[in-house]
Amino acid sequence: MTGDVKRVVLAYSGGLDTSVILKWLQTTYGCEVVTFTADLGQGEELEPARKKAEMLGIKPEHIFIEDVREEFVSDYVFPMFRANAVYEGQYLLGTSIARPLIAKKQIEIARKVGADAVSHGATGKGNDQVRFELSYYALEPDIKIIAPWREWNLASRTRLLEFAESHQIPIAKDKRGEAPFSVDANLLHSSSEGKVLEDPAQEAPEMVYMRTISPEDAPDKATYITIDFEKGDPVAIDGEKMSPATLLTKLNALGRENGIGRLDLVENRFVGMKSRGVYETPGGTILLVAHRGIESITLDRGAAHLKDEIMPRYAELIYNGFWFSPEREMLQALIDKSQELVTGQVRVKLYKGNVDVVGRESPYSLYNQDLVTFEEGAVAYDHRDAQGFIKLNALRLRTLANRNKLTGG
Amino acid sequence: MTGDVKRVVLAYSGGLDTSVILKWLQTTYGCEVVTFTADLGQGEELEPARKKAEMLGIKPEHIFIEDVREEFVSDYVFPMFRANAVYEGQYLLGTSIARPLIAKKQIEIARKVGADAVSHGATGKGNDQVRFELSYYALEPDIKIIAPWREWNLASRTRLLEFAESHQIPIAKDKRGEAPFSVDANLLHSSSEGKVLEDPAQEAPEMVYMRTISPEDAPDKATYITIDFEKGDPVAIDGEKMSPATLLTKLNALGRENGIGRLDLVENRFVGMKSRGVYETPGGTILLVAHRGIESITLDRGAAHLKDEIMPRYAELIYNGFWFSPEREMLQALIDKSQELVTGQVRVKLYKGNVDVVGRESPYSLYNQDLVTFEEGAVAYDHRDAQGFIKLNALRLRTLANRNKLTGG
Amino acid sequence: MTGDVKRVVLAYSGGLDTSVILKWLQTTYGCEVVTFTADLGQGEELEPARKKAEMLGIKPEHIFIEDVREEFVSDYVFPMFRANAVYEGQYLLGTSIARPLIAKKQIEIARKVGADAVSHGATGKGNDQVRFELSYYALEPDIKIIAPWREWNLASRTRLLEFAESHQIPIAKDKRGEAPFSVDANLLHSSSEGKVLEDPAQEAPEMVYMRTISPEDAPDKATYITIDFEKGDPVAIDGEKMSPATLLTKLNALGRENGIGRLDLVENRFVGMKSRGVYETPGGTILLVAHRGIESITLDRGAAHLKDEIMPRYAELIYNGFWFSPEREMLQALIDKSQELVTGQVRVKLYKGNVDVVGRESPYSLYNQDLVTFEEGAVAYDHRDAQGFIKLNALRLRTLANRNKLTGG
Amino acid sequence: MTGDVKRVVLAYSGGLDTSVILKWLQTTYGCEVVTFTADLGQGEELEPARKKAEMLGIKPEHIFIEDVREEFVSDYVFPMFRANAVYEGQYLLGTSIARPLIAKKQIEIARKVGADAVSHGATGKGNDQVRFELSYYALEPDIKIIAPWREWNLASRTRLLEFAESHQIPIAKDKRGEAPFSVDANLLHSSSEGKVLEDPAQEAPEMVYMRTISPEDAPDKATYITIDFEKGDPVAIDGEKMSPATLLTKLNALGRENGIGRLDLVENRFVGMKSRGVYETPGGTILLVAHRGIESITLDRGAAHLKDEIMPRYAELIYNGFWFSPEREMLQALIDKSQELVTGQVRVKLYKGNVDVVGRESPYSLYNQDLVTFEEGAVAYDHRDAQGFIKLNALRLRTLANRNKLTGG
Repeated sequence: MTGDVKRVVLAYSGGLDTSVILKWLQTTYGCEVVTFTADLGQGEELEPARKKAEMLGIKPEHIFIEDVREEFVSDYVFPMFRANAVYEGQYLLGTSIARPLIAKKQIEIARKVGADAVSHGATGKGNDQVRFELSYYALEPDIKIIAPWREWNLASRTRLLEFAESHQIPIAKDKRGEAPFSVDANLLHSSSEGKVLEDPAQEAPEMVYMRTISPEDAPDKATYITIDFEKGDPVAIDGEKMSPATLLTKLNALGRENGIGRLDLVENRFVGMKSRGVYETPGGTILLVAHRGIESITLDRGAAHLKDEIMPRYAELIYNGFWFSPEREMLQALIDKSQELVTGQVRVKLYKGNVDVVGRESPYSLYNQDLVTFEEGAVAYDHRDAQGFIKLNALRLRTLANRNKLTGG
Repeated sequence: MTGDVKRVVLAYSGGLDTSVILKWLQTTYGCEVVTFTADLGQGEELEPARKKAEMLGIKPEHIFIEDVREEFVSDYVFPMFRANAVYEGQYLLGTSIARPLIAKKQIEIARKVGADAVSHGATGKGNDQVRFELSYYALEPDIKIIAPWREWNLASRTRLLEFAESHQIPIAKDKRGEAPFSVDANLLHSSSEGKVLEDPAQEAPEMVYMRTISPEDAPDKATYITIDFEKGDPVAIDGEKMSPATLLTKLNALGRENGIGRLDLVENRFVGMKSRGVYETPGGTILLVAHRGIESITLDRGAAHLKDEIMPRYAELIYNGFWFSPEREMLQALIDKSQELVTGQVRVKLYKGNVDVVGRESPYSLYNQDLVTFEEGAVAYDHRDAQGFIKLNALRLRTLANRNKLTGG
Repeated sequence: MTGDVKRVVLAYSGGLDTSVILKWLQTTYGCEVVTFTADLGQGEELEPARKKAEMLGIKPEHIFIEDVREEFVSDYVFPMFRANAVYEGQYLLGTSIARPLIAKKQIEIARKVGADAVSHGATGKGNDQVRFELSYYALEPDIKIIAPWREWNLASRTRLLEFAESHQIPIAKDKRGEAPFSVDANLLHSSSEGKVLEDPAQEAPEMVYMRTISPEDAPDKATYITIDFEKGDPVAIDGEKMSPATLLTKLNALGRENGIGRLDLVENRFVGMKSRGVYETPGGTILLVAHRGIESITLDRGAAHLKDEIMPRYAELIYNGFWFSPEREMLQALIDKSQELVTGQVRVKLYKGNVDVVGRESPYSLYNQDLVTFEEGAVAYDHRDAQGFIKLNALRLRTLANRNKLTGG
Repeated sequence: MTGDVKRVVLAYSGGLDTSVILKWLQTTYGCEVVTFTADLGQGEELEPARKKAEMLGIKPEHIFIEDVREEFVSDYVFPMFRANAVYEGQYLLGTSIARPLIAKKQIEIARKVGADAVSHGATGKGNDQVRFELSYYALEPDIKIIAPWREWNLASRTRLLEFAESHQIPIAKDKRGEAPFSVDANLLHSSSEGKVLEDPAQEAPEMVYMRTISPEDAPDKATYITIDFEKGDPVAIDGEKMSPATLLTKLNALGRENGIGRLDLVENRFVGMKSRGVYETPGGTILLVAHRGIESITLDRGAAHLKDEIMPRYAELIYNGFWFSPEREMLQALIDKSQELVTGQVRVKLYKGNVDVVGRESPYSLYNQDLVTFEEGAVAYDHRDAQGFIKLNALRLRTLANRNKLTGG
């Protein structure tokens, strides 16, 4: 509890849970609620959220609805993909990367409307509360934060529904019962967790997947596409230039049809426990593979290996909610520096869950056929240089070996 | 050229190239040649190599043929897989990991027969010369090394064939023409490179693949298997205990049938240029996914993230040929320490190129359903702790934010 | 507050603060208090602590006093020094490394006497509470922890003294007033912080230093000593073998006399704020320099650089209280692996705050005068090898340079 | 040997060795020699070099002499010090950092005069040949490089002198005999190695030191100075603004007088062997300490720790000669990003070899006395938050501990 609150900006989806939070904030804190609803590409209409907010007593000028899809992709998703970021070797960070943007928008609105607090609907056991709140604090250090799921006594579904009913909050029929799992979605991915997924020994049921058809149901014939990159970011599909969000939407459609981007993972949360999630990142999965493909011919080895070494740290920072931190920005500076000539075209084959690079070309390619060919007469490479290279690399190993003879080692 | 040589141990495959080398060593150095032929699971008969060596004048007691498959898998492949090692994010290091073992065997034979030199058939532009020679030097610092491809004047196919003919070396019919690409194979993988693969913009032709059927040709129905792990290593498939090499052989068969483990990659060689290779690692690809699966429930977050961070360095060391180096051994000590309780069972779905973990269980699981559940009453976790956790994690960010106000930043 | 407590093991120094805690635990929790007082080399008599505990009503069989100096140095200090661990480039971790041992002893006693809780006297703003409690939890996950400084209302000096008086706790005369700074000490170091040190722009007053004379007061003539190392640990000074704690005590005396080991530092606490501390680590400072000296001739470059790269992470783990964590143990395995032949003798010059290695020798030295000499005829090194070495290292840079010509870059 | 050469730009000091090289290039390659002599602050007059070059037949328009001290300090030394770079924990990289600048100047001159080759006087066993040549290649990939020490037969002192005499190269009297050690110097440091220093068990004789008086001879009274920093670089001493080179010169004088910056080190060369060097970096040693001081209050923990972790890699790159590489530039981008508010003043005490920060202040200080004080009522910090912080940090350790009970571990 954070004391007296006059006006609070709530991250509001229009769904049952955040509607209950809205009402709970009004009744518990006696404060004015300002709602922010973002179109992050989650695939839901936003206007119903406006109507519901109005119905729950929010003044029209305090209802903020914004389509942030282009900003999301160009300023958050693409910078992250420049790093080939994956958490724990597999997770493409679809939820993690959306939270800082929502938090930033809430803080901007709080400044605009003179709110002294912000609130979100993330639970007390998850990573999202951390991501929201670290972002709030990093942007507005004295903001008050209300995290209802950590405060209230509505933790059971029954009590939540009772509260909703007693406050005339409409409840969709399919929300009466327990949802079999919980979902987060945006233009980059959908995630599902909880309930039917809680036993990691059991295969995730097909009904969990909502954004991809199964590889089994995907076409029997491969789809080939080309993706153009400029400075590390995708700019065109099959030669057609597109805005960031349009491009990702197109990749999502291609991924969906070909059963691409499913992941069933047990991961380590920042708050200390393991959890099991099912992720679908159809377009992002294609993008990661394609980006590695264009890097493979345009990035120097030294640059590429340095990127690979710092990547786990970078991904961990995003996962843990430290997008707005000096260390993330320092790593971003390093990564962006490397992408200046990551420009060119990658051809990708999509087939029943598989994404494979089958061709790459670039005006800035570092691949040199003359250097690598088995034929005689190659320029710039003298076979005899290899001997010196090996001998000096071996020198310390030979010195060690001589010592080991002393020790019988 | 390394001066006077009396007796040299040659890594001998029985093929045309190493047969030419054998003869070239005899004629150029006037030295006695000792052959070593290893069964690393490359899928070729070894007895023809013995006959060919005899025919080329090698004394029977100087012909060494050994089945090293079990040693290869248990002492090289499995330790590497404990690290989830991939080079440049993708390559499973199938060739790299075999070289140190061959080198070690050559040095052991050199000691046994009193040889003062070793020789190999790797070219002067590749990584394998480095891997062989760093291993030789690390094990026997004063050994002489003869690398014919860096020394001789037989660099063109024509001259090589002329030399073979003039020395009565039999030439298989299909070796008359230029091979359309060159191949390395062992129990872990096959690699192909050169010629038809040299243009990275062109898709690799299907004929390049020899160890896997294409995903398109794989069964329309998924195959499910379970893999048991003990201390980080696989020990059983579908409950049946197997020796390391037997197990990998079985996984290879499963991978082959399901079109698993193909990789078309432009990579950075240690000797400084980019090259394009096609790799097939059917069993290894399954193993990597399954190992990550068992780790996901048995490895602590701190251990897992540390492993992820050092992995690129570890993989680079193996790729570059530093298996027998203090730093690789130090990293191995770190990795092995983490695997003590990486024990349990993983269920994997194989389908047309895809490998997906669909279940994991372990007597040492760190996954705790009570901790993660959305329900009330969970033990050991107080929602209110999250607030303190977030606030102290945010403290420095808030301090930064207050400073930024000073700077208008 | 952690609910019902029956018996609590308190880390008890015998001083005013922990005596107040002792009484506060009895009166607040109505529980039985068990005291643990350790001789870590802090330089205080322990028997007064026994008498005071008895006077405060602790049963004799519940008063535990132990000399843990040898265990402290051999199992905590020396392993840490094998890593050359310094936090933020400078701090030798003298306080951090003592906390896990105290915590471990408390847990052992708790098991012995059937206690259900432990308690410590660390404040709510510092790192020590974290170090104690992470260690408690890592060793005994369900232990209850009482941290009085976070719970009680005795935060001001006045209230604390009132409580002491009202409970007949004797107050030493010099404790009546506010101490001008607070101190922690053990065999490795003394630290001072707070009050007169809180302004980082002001030089620390000389009176803060208690364990070293000032460089200005140190002898005008240098002292030379030799230190013998075995497997990375010091075992003898000037040829005289000593136990770990005896050796460190001797180094402390040498450091003290020569004004060695003072550090005035602004550091970053794990709990999120910056603090300013003054540290004195006389023997440890000598040891760090000497250990680097013996490593300089016995550690291979690959091993040394890997150690340097992981060191900051290792030091951070200790500073943050994660001694008993898998990742610290994994790093320790890596470090210990490197120390197997770190054996030999270092000669060190001590002079008015300076510690300089002036000589090093080892039966396992990797320094090879023949290799390095400018003279002709050196073995194992052919000048011409350097050309190949450089040319292959340069190959990727030349490829980059050719590309840059394309871009006008 | 690099084939036909028409015109070569030689890094020419005017000393005996490079004069011999000059003549040897003329006679061996029959090419035109262009000389480049840089004032890097090595403390020698440059005009004698001009006269000597003229005397040896170099055309006046082919004699290039340049004072590069300001460029050296502002574009090489200061960027490196932003990283707190030390190689192998101790060496301040004084020689390493000068080589890329000399190489760059040679390449620029080569372009201007249409030279097809460059040459340097570094030996075939050292790091400098690598640093020169990697820089040459990185800037001008097709340049020819002549490294006389790797090619000629003048490796002994006697033969070198004979060659000089037979070619009328004047030999200073003190160059007749063998120098007791060899020296490199610039504005950042002097290094000495070889001969009398080759036995690492023997203390370096006092005569080796040329740039600092001994701590024993330094004043008995401390000198206090303040250094002002802006964005990570020093800009003023005792309030007086100075250009980069002037400032470093001033710090050198202060360091010299106070016996500061001596280092006797056994280090690992990139070419594979260990060598022993004596370094004097008086001003740089002060600068390193002061820079850490200003960072201690202006850098956030996340930024500081990330810098510490990547530093060894950054230093290794500079040491190995990879200044002009993508990975060094990427790391520089990361480092520079962190320095934007590293602005303020540090007070430093200099005394007989010791450099100690005694005060630091900054308009951008992150040190917050209110946060750290022991007193009640501090803002922004609630003691109870610490409990939640600890409990969530401990959660995974407790889970591990519960598992360990299963295993009896």
